[in-house]
Amino acid sequence: MSKADVSLEHLFKVFTKPENDDSTLAKIERHLSDNVSDFLSRHVVAKKTSLEEIEQDFMSHLVPDQPEFVSTHAELLLEKLVSHSVNTYSPTFIGHMTSALPYFQLSLAKLLVGLNQNLVKIETSKAFTPLERQTLGMMHNLVYNCDEAFYGEYLHSAKHSLGAFCSGGTIANITALWVARNKLLGPSRDFAGVAKVGLMAAYKHHSINNLGLICSKRGHYSLGKAVDVLGIGRNNMLKVDNSDLRLSPESVLKLGTQYQAQGNKLLAIVGIAGTTETGHVDPLDELADVAKELGTWFHVDAAWGGATLFSNTHKHILKGIERSDSVTIDAHKQMYVPVGAGMALFKNPHDANAVRHHAQYILREGSKDLGATTLEGSRNGMALTVYSSLHILGRNGYQLLIDKAISLAQTFARLINQHKHFELVTEPVLSLLTYRLRPAHLSAMGEASASQVKDINSELDKLTVSIQKQQREAGKSFVSRTRIEAPQYQGAAITVFRVVLANPLTTEQDLVNILNEQVALAEAHEIWQQLSQQVLSRIA
Amino acid sequence: MSKADVSLEHLFKVFTKPENDDSTLAKIERHLSDNVSDFLSRHVVAKKTSLEEIEQDFMSHLVPDQPEFVSTHAELLLEKLVSHSVNTYSPTFIGHMTSALPYFQLSLAKLLVGLNQNLVKIETSKAFTPLERQTLGMMHNLVYNCDEAFYGEYLHSAKHSLGAFCSGGTIANITALWVARNKLLGPSRDFAGVAKVGLMAAYKHHSINNLGLICSKRGHYSLGKAVDVLGIGRNNMLKVDNSDLRLSPESVLKLGTQYQAQGNKLLAIVGIAGTTETGHVDPLDELADVAKELGTWFHVDAAWGGATLFSNTHKHILKGIERSDSVTIDAHKQMYVPVGAGMALFKNPHDANAVRHHAQYILREGSKDLGATTLEGSRNGMALTVYSSLHILGRNGYQLLIDKAISLAQTFARLINQHKHFELVTEPVLSLLTYRLRPAHLSAMGEASASQVKDINSELDKLTVSIQKQQREAGKSFVSRTRIEAPQYQGAAITVFRVVLANPLTTEQDLVNILNEQVALAEAHEIWQQLSQQVLSRIA
Repeated sequence: MSKADVSLEHLFKVFTKPENDDSTLAKIERHLSDNVSDFLSRHVVAKKTSLEEIEQDFMSHLVPDQPEFVSTHAELLLEKLVSHSVNTYSPTFIGHMTSALPYFQLSLAKLLVGLNQNLVKIETSKAFTPLERQTLGMMHNLVYNCDEAFYGEYLHSAKHSLGAFCSGGTIANITALWVARNKLLGPSRDFAGVAKVGLMAAYKHHSINNLGLICSKRGHYSLGKAVDVLGIGRNNMLKVDNSDLRLSPESVLKLGTQYQAQGNKLLAIVGIAGTTETGHVDPLDELADVAKELGTWFHVDAAWGGATLFSNTHKHILKGIERSDSVTIDAHKQMYVPVGAGMALFKNPHDANAVRHHAQYILREGSKDLGATTLEGSRNGMALTVYSSLHILGRNGYQLLIDKAISLAQTFARLINQHKHFELVTEPVLSLLTYRLRPAHLSAMGEASASQVKDINSELDKLTVSIQKQQREAGKSFVSRTRIEAPQYQGAAITVFRVVLANPLTTEQDLVNILNEQVALAEAHEIWQQLSQQVLSRIA
Repeated sequence: MSKADVSLEHLFKVFTKPENDDSTLAKIERHLSDNVSDFLSRHVVAKKTSLEEIEQDFMSHLVPDQPEFVSTHAELLLEKLVSHSVNTYSPTFIGHMTSALPYFQLSLAKLLVGLNQNLVKIETSKAFTPLERQTLGMMHNLVYNCDEAFYGEYLHSAKHSLGAFCSGGTIANITALWVARNKLLGPSRDFAGVAKVGLMAAYKHHSINNLGLICSKRGHYSLGKAVDVLGIGRNNMLKVDNSDLRLSPESVLKLGTQYQAQGNKLLAIVGIAGTTETGHVDPLDELADVAKELGTWFHVDAAWGGATLFSNTHKHILKGIERSDSVTIDAHKQMYVPVGAGMALFKNPHDANAVRHHAQYILREGSKDLGATTLEGSRNGMALTVYSSLHILGRNGYQLLIDKAISLAQTFARLINQHKHFELVTEPVLSLLTYRLRPAHLSAMGEASASQVKDINSELDKLTVSIQKQQREAGKSFVSRTRIEAPQYQGAAITVFRVVLANPLTTEQDLVNILNEQVALAEAHEIWQQLSQQVLSRIA
């Protein structure tokens, strides 16, 4: 491979001389601008199916000594990286929460790097700081709907914060619970506060054995990380068994009362608005009551479901979210911006002061530097992607997209229910649902004994894993899979296909094709064939 | 303002129809591609100087109902946002660690959004997962220089991790100390480990009063956040006074021994390789000895200085970094990639397992999903920007850039020393230095009494603050400021200009102009004029 010169002159060119119009990178850019779907379908060819094979292209641990020409490198990226990426724009990629994005986001990405602002402080972001504050204010208003005087006072206040932009929902959840912890165990007349003296001293001062957090078994794994990082410990994440996949307020009240009576203190109750696996929404309004009764923080993880608030048709599902103390929303999920735009929002603009910090060269007392209350330090201007999307799609545009996604999920549920070889496991509440293949002749399973059902489910689990993998590797479409406690099997855990119907370009025909492909793969599968014989003979 | 239709048809266009070639966004993109410096100098006009004035454009807390046309919105962005951003590409923007970027990063940013991969799991990233692992491996090798067999075994191992990509250095520092904490207080035969039972139980089990961290007074403020978040408490961050701006190994040993003798346990010693304010590098090799003697984790925060390892000329300054347990490096600092590319590296590939976690639908046991050992969840493919930069600049290219930056800092130090109206406060070790204006007639200050020196310094502090602000607002150039304990004033804190000479396009003439501008502003300043009279009369 030809190598470039190692000279300051060559390097200066890399910084100052744009790529030619006929360079590979310029061509890539034009192709993306003209037709991103076409770019992806041509280049994401996924010839290698196993990760081990792909890894062969990424084996060297040595930083190459000599510079490579940009064009040589770009060719390699197409061949080794792009060709084996995932086509998240594809309408049949319905397994995860990443989907097609509007075109203007491509241009904004370039603008962001051209500007390369750092939002930790005003000196390296200037107008981006008020832009981010406004964006957080708009999202705060969407959730909490406070009045004009409120935003007039707090939107740009140096002493307050309506929320924090984060790289994602995990950091947002940690930020919210960090604030909750530091507020609960904050400084008082005779105590310096947990931020200064640490958890051990805070527990002693407050005479508590443990801090605990209550959420449902479907709580996102980031909550586990949060209690781990914050020093609370995973055992103190009290997961309530929720047989209908929603957190039961009665169980929470009972558990919380018991827990606090044992010398512990509840840090927070976390309600989920759109669980990652099935899209269920906890009964937020009733949970707000329980939080009030127990005197604890109420956090809502609406990383996925928060955008439902744009829809007048469906926002009632999230009723009660406006009573929470904090909310997590990921704009890179249902708000159609690129990955990296999480937000933690705080109802009370004073709360973030529980984690306020300063330095000598930035974040000085009284400054409006955003970094004074964020967990992250240097951050890029991702708020722009959300700001622009709020303007270019608008509340009404988002409503149409959300309504369409939920309606498509209902259509898919109907298709599954109508198909003799499928079993819908969880109904869509938002635009997620789970289902599995179940050969038609097993419909007599209801009559089978518990141990027979268990055996069959175990075989079906293996079938689901195998079909999901085969379908993914075939490369035409992608659904994900998970294990959930299925209400219809008395809470026994079964493996299911999981779909997220967020891509506005997905059609009913795409869904029909996905089901047909799964049936075709299944009918050729040995488990399917064995099940036909064994099970029929057993049940007969 | 004209508003777009609210219809699914219109929205589909936003997702599927590219912008016209003569649209504002397309023009912005072309201008960026053709000449990013020219784009910035034309559009970053900064007519409004006060933040309050800029805020007027970002006041509404309401998500607009109706969609805006993309072109209308893009015009507004140019007018309201871009015009009042910071020109970080400018060769005279030498106040912070963000600088000009190579052109290819603009194209990569667009490619990243076109692909929109999520690196938390292979199912949404595929080839990006091995690419990120390889990039971490190359950086690991740069620091730890292990042999081929080592990387052959660990680079792509599902059970190991050489590091974690993070949104920035703060998350990298937190990640490193989280791993250190969970390893130190990890599970044993009769203890479930801090991750499960929390800090309180872990302290009790190990019979320790407190966990502590030792670093210098120049430690980055993110370390304070780390001990806060991790539940250790800011009071347990033991900051060693370091009169020569480097952490004294003797003091650390003494303090650490004392601290542990009092029933506490040291979590870590943190050495800084390139302090944010002055660029000093702690004596890493000797600190490694002390860490060994005290039996504690040794973390090096090389967010800024890590890239010095590319230079055979200067890497000796970081000697001992290869003996650390973990290292933080920010590629968006001296590696010239866009903001958002931090890394935590671990010498021992087993260590990250102290924070390993799983979920049902991803990060399954045995998978190579990167998210199983990262603090963040969903993340974009920033590793690509580093991977490409390592190839396109190469180790030798980076060496030239690093050497040039350090040499330019030395040139600047010489200019300052030669100028009668300036005082160099800290010599450049890497490419940072601090200085201040000091009228020539004050050179007799050495003869002044302590209280006179204090008074004069207090006046000079005000002058520095004021000139820094005036220069920033004039918009031609930017240096930052901070307060440091100056060795030449017996450790008294003074306010200084702080410069970071990272931009490869900055010339000696730019530096001369910056000094001349400061002198011109100062000579017109009332403090300068008063000082001339008052001080002369006092000292006389």
